[in-house]
Amino acid sequence: MTAREERAPGIHEVREIAARCSNWGRWGPEDELGTLNHIRPSDVVSAASLVKSGRVLSLSIPIDEHGPQTGGFGRFNPIHLMLRDGNAAVTETVVRDFYGGHDLWIRGTDDLLILPLQSGTQWDALSHIVFERRIYNGYAATVVGGKGALRNDIAKARNRIVGRGVLLDLPRWKGRAWLDPGEVISARDLGDCARSQGVAVGRGDILLIRTGQLSQCRSQGLWGEYAGGPAPGIGLDTASWIAERELAAVASDTWGLEVLPNQTPDVFQPLHIILIVHMGLTIGEIFDLEELADTCSQAGRYEFLFSGPPLPITGAVGSPVNPIAIV
Amino acid sequence: MTAREERAPGIHEVREIAARCSNWGRWGPEDELGTLNHIRPSDVVSAASLVKSGRVLSLSIPIDEHGPQTGGFGRFNPIHLMLRDGNAAVTETVVRDFYGGHDLWIRGTDDLLILPLQSGTQWDALSHIVFERRIYNGYAATVVGGKGALRNDIAKARNRIVGRGVLLDLPRWKGRAWLDPGEVISARDLGDCARSQGVAVGRGDILLIRTGQLSQCRSQGLWGEYAGGPAPGIGLDTASWIAERELAAVASDTWGLEVLPNQTPDVFQPLHIILIVHMGLTIGEIFDLEELADTCSQAGRYEFLFSGPPLPITGAVGSPVNPIAIV
Amino acid sequence: MTAREERAPGIHEVREIAARCSNWGRWGPEDELGTLNHIRPSDVVSAASLVKSGRVLSLSIPIDEHGPQTGGFGRFNPIHLMLRDGNAAVTETVVRDFYGGHDLWIRGTDDLLILPLQSGTQWDALSHIVFERRIYNGYAATVVGGKGALRNDIAKARNRIVGRGVLLDLPRWKGRAWLDPGEVISARDLGDCARSQGVAVGRGDILLIRTGQLSQCRSQGLWGEYAGGPAPGIGLDTASWIAERELAAVASDTWGLEVLPNQTPDVFQPLHIILIVHMGLTIGEIFDLEELADTCSQAGRYEFLFSGPPLPITGAVGSPVNPIAIV
Amino acid sequence: MTAREERAPGIHEVREIAARCSNWGRWGPEDELGTLNHIRPSDVVSAASLVKSGRVLSLSIPIDEHGPQTGGFGRFNPIHLMLRDGNAAVTETVVRDFYGGHDLWIRGTDDLLILPLQSGTQWDALSHIVFERRIYNGYAATVVGGKGALRNDIAKARNRIVGRGVLLDLPRWKGRAWLDPGEVISARDLGDCARSQGVAVGRGDILLIRTGQLSQCRSQGLWGEYAGGPAPGIGLDTASWIAERELAAVASDTWGLEVLPNQTPDVFQPLHIILIVHMGLTIGEIFDLEELADTCSQAGRYEFLFSGPPLPITGAVGSPVNPIAIV
Repeated sequence: MTAREERAPGIHEVREIAARCSNWGRWGPEDELGTLNHIRPSDVVSAASLVKSGRVLSLSIPIDEHGPQTGGFGRFNPIHLMLRDGNAAVTETVVRDFYGGHDLWIRGTDDLLILPLQSGTQWDALSHIVFERRIYNGYAATVVGGKGALRNDIAKARNRIVGRGVLLDLPRWKGRAWLDPGEVISARDLGDCARSQGVAVGRGDILLIRTGQLSQCRSQGLWGEYAGGPAPGIGLDTASWIAERELAAVASDTWGLEVLPNQTPDVFQPLHIILIVHMGLTIGEIFDLEELADTCSQAGRYEFLFSGPPLPITGAVGSPVNPIAIV
Repeated sequence: MTAREERAPGIHEVREIAARCSNWGRWGPEDELGTLNHIRPSDVVSAASLVKSGRVLSLSIPIDEHGPQTGGFGRFNPIHLMLRDGNAAVTETVVRDFYGGHDLWIRGTDDLLILPLQSGTQWDALSHIVFERRIYNGYAATVVGGKGALRNDIAKARNRIVGRGVLLDLPRWKGRAWLDPGEVISARDLGDCARSQGVAVGRGDILLIRTGQLSQCRSQGLWGEYAGGPAPGIGLDTASWIAERELAAVASDTWGLEVLPNQTPDVFQPLHIILIVHMGLTIGEIFDLEELADTCSQAGRYEFLFSGPPLPITGAVGSPVNPIAIV
Repeated sequence: MTAREERAPGIHEVREIAARCSNWGRWGPEDELGTLNHIRPSDVVSAASLVKSGRVLSLSIPIDEHGPQTGGFGRFNPIHLMLRDGNAAVTETVVRDFYGGHDLWIRGTDDLLILPLQSGTQWDALSHIVFERRIYNGYAATVVGGKGALRNDIAKARNRIVGRGVLLDLPRWKGRAWLDPGEVISARDLGDCARSQGVAVGRGDILLIRTGQLSQCRSQGLWGEYAGGPAPGIGLDTASWIAERELAAVASDTWGLEVLPNQTPDVFQPLHIILIVHMGLTIGEIFDLEELADTCSQAGRYEFLFSGPPLPITGAVGSPVNPIAIV
Repeated sequence: MTAREERAPGIHEVREIAARCSNWGRWGPEDELGTLNHIRPSDVVSAASLVKSGRVLSLSIPIDEHGPQTGGFGRFNPIHLMLRDGNAAVTETVVRDFYGGHDLWIRGTDDLLILPLQSGTQWDALSHIVFERRIYNGYAATVVGGKGALRNDIAKARNRIVGRGVLLDLPRWKGRAWLDPGEVISARDLGDCARSQGVAVGRGDILLIRTGQLSQCRSQGLWGEYAGGPAPGIGLDTASWIAERELAAVASDTWGLEVLPNQTPDVFQPLHIILIVHMGLTIGEIFDLEELADTCSQAGRYEFLFSGPPLPITGAVGSPVNPIAIV
């Protein structure tokens, strides 16, 4: 055992933090929404009043074969296929193949997507992570079976994840283009950055944490190890910070939100255990925050109306999403 | 030729209306957004002020194998598959199969969707319909090839389709549970219904037209001929009404928005030709407007903030969407 | 408990027969081939000598959307999609979309298949059935995880299932067009039919059992309850008959080989437990034996060279196959 | 224009050879089998007599995610997914999810494949290549539309591609481990190699041409540019050699059968045009000939019974296949 490992936090610390931040039972034994419960209708009304310029910003990377996936966890980039295209309209075979030979003037095109639900800009459902045979609110892991999640599926949030969005732009605050892979974002960083930006973060907020890693990939012209390799991200001590502020959801511009390598050599993605399984926090990954960051910086305002409801895919443990910030 | 066919409108009328309503070139020769251009940032600001109760309503049907598709046009219902589930977490084979044998405490679940993009609640892209070898703004149909739409794909609207939403609840206005299959909604119906509801419809609005057909299917407990069979819907004369009001988008709770059988025996879905190809109107189908209709009726208010950006699927001729009304 | 259930065989009988027919360990603790071991190279040489006319008969139903599946067990009919088609060759967009804009005269077409491996004419792998947490040869069921079967996958048989084929044409022997749904084929029936046909069945043979149910479906013009509903098929007492003769594989023209409803009200598909899990018998389903039956009848010969190696799909628990009889 | 290009053959030569080798109309205007017509039943009888040892060799590479594809032409490696696995049997959730909650002792596993039909060991259908808007036998390219090939689909060969197989082992004949990328195999090479091996090649034969490139990839431990990059393969002058001998099918162990770069800088894959479109020759690619080559070398015999019927995928322009040599 090296000195580093001796001092590194492990499963003991993860359990401790998880216990402190746990929301199991907080909204009743049947709850499947977790911290999304922190958003009250009145928060949505307030958030709507943050719309000043009326500009809409999309926070999703393109959904196509050029995404970041390289096969890890069986994830591949989305596959888009045409069922019938404009060529068939021109040659008129669409009439033969899709209209039963009856030419009624119209020609349509159709398409299809094969999409690993964790492949791009996405929400993790509260059924996405299992710890010690349990998912959020104590449901047995076996509720997530071959036909999908019977509990905590992403469809439960179909009319949620709308409210006040706050961006914390860590690299800009630090005066850099991006944080380095492996660079930890601490609770203190989050607080200081917010203060520096002149924005408060509180109950029911949807927090977007920019590390700039997407920008780094773009400047390199390739994804490299973006999917699962070293990344900047939040550290263990942010769990309490998130819990105390009663945030509704947290998203970032990296593959996995957390700093990689993790601070816990023996526990992979410890915050997924703490935040998703115990806190019941909805987590967003691979959000494109670049245009939003520029916009916020120019306006000097880091709050906005955020709208990012998932697709209501029955039983899904995640959902692609095109989240928008309306500034 | 029967008397009915003699009197029925045909391709001549369709061409005439299309010419009158055409927006080709209106926003320049490179435009790919069509009537979404009608929404100005200031409209979004105004729309945000319509949020009164802060309640969020989802307008999407569930995305799963129980959808309405029966194979027409090669469309099938979405197929949801697990890549790794909670069972693998319990038996711990997830460690063997997905973590390279290294047990670092966490266990994740992942999933995948195979989804015809026209199978459920969806936006039709402006590349979805071809008429006489052209798509909206005059682009050649061949821009929609085997790799998808190079022009007018749905991803162009990634930061759009947010603004003032207006619901017209036709059956409630008529005092019925739903309109009958084959029942035409005329321009006059739309105007009278709006007046009766005390709501004005104008430039940049996203109009939701309720026929109640989803309710009828639910009361029967089956989809029946919902996908492509007889349906209530808007008639030919609504094209001018929509054009004059400069609506940004129109959606309905039926498979194809238009009345079926069409009023034009020789032209299938004539309004798809007029509205999508010539007007450049983004059309939504299979929207679930039931909860929204009840809510609007109770509140006596039929306007709200609407947010329904598509997924930015590169080259796609449509997109699944979970549109929301924030009331 | 009703009188019928009192008398019906149950799990006790299944266990008893399974124990008697078990081949666990027979070919060593690492065996993954089961009764395919019964085929010796010399048998293949002998089988080759059965080729008299040189006619090749395909025993597979078409692989397309018109197959028998109706959604049971998550199985759907195969989905065939074009990646690029002849229309793209005619409009020449294939050059733009697939050849990087360089026209080098050629134009290709490509396609894709989405195929549940149990959807049509297929071999069940020895990993397809689990009984009391074990698969064939005693491997733990957990060897079949999220990434497929690490043991007993169908790819193990990639150079097998070639040898002497024998057809037993039950309905012809009984002078009928087809056996009725629910009609049991007993061990005695098999023996008598073979005798009547003048053919012996023995070690290493691949036995094809015709019930005529495919013919019945065709005469009705629809699949009806073919996939999982009442069907003629072999009964419990055929297990010993198969074991004693040391058959290599058994296939039939029904969805599930066994008679349905099963003779064991409390055990579904008991022969799958006995034959696949304990005997290690490779089972074929949905084989089209109609043309073969006519050919054998005309020739008065019911033996032939059979070739039906599976696709070597790594980790698969089944494989589509186009089995052929060379007569 | 460089000296090389001046001398290089071009579309003129391709057209000339194609005209000389054309079989359009040879077997009637409705023919969809091309040179597979060269195989007579008596050939199959003769081929069966070539079975001496009874050993069966599989000529397919594994069908899985580790295949050679890198995205060219939209081709990706096969994706294998479990619908229900052994974990679900162990946790018994399979009873809940797939058996309607009724535990009848059995637990099954099921799986699914997403497979580009040109991704691995495969037959090209006679509808796979278009030249000047025509496919084999003169059918218009538009018969290959969005729903697949209405003419010349691979399913037409469902009871074919069985007969005498002959292996020509070019690298062994040349005393090398493999031919180099870019190395041309000429008609003379084929003849000399056959003579050296003591085997005649003639009407109705299925010819397997080994270049050793698969061996080279394996020795490097990676596919590298196997899919579409430089490769050894047959040159232009082999077309006449194949035509004169009236071969039924030709397959090789490379991605595209032909030498790459092609001898015709201005025509990509010229033999695909000549052989598939005009000769109507069924072509096999990515065949694994390594074990067969060793076996033939040891036995000093290069002929065998070959069985490689395609899957009868309706409308498909190609098919995965597990071809076998029975020696």
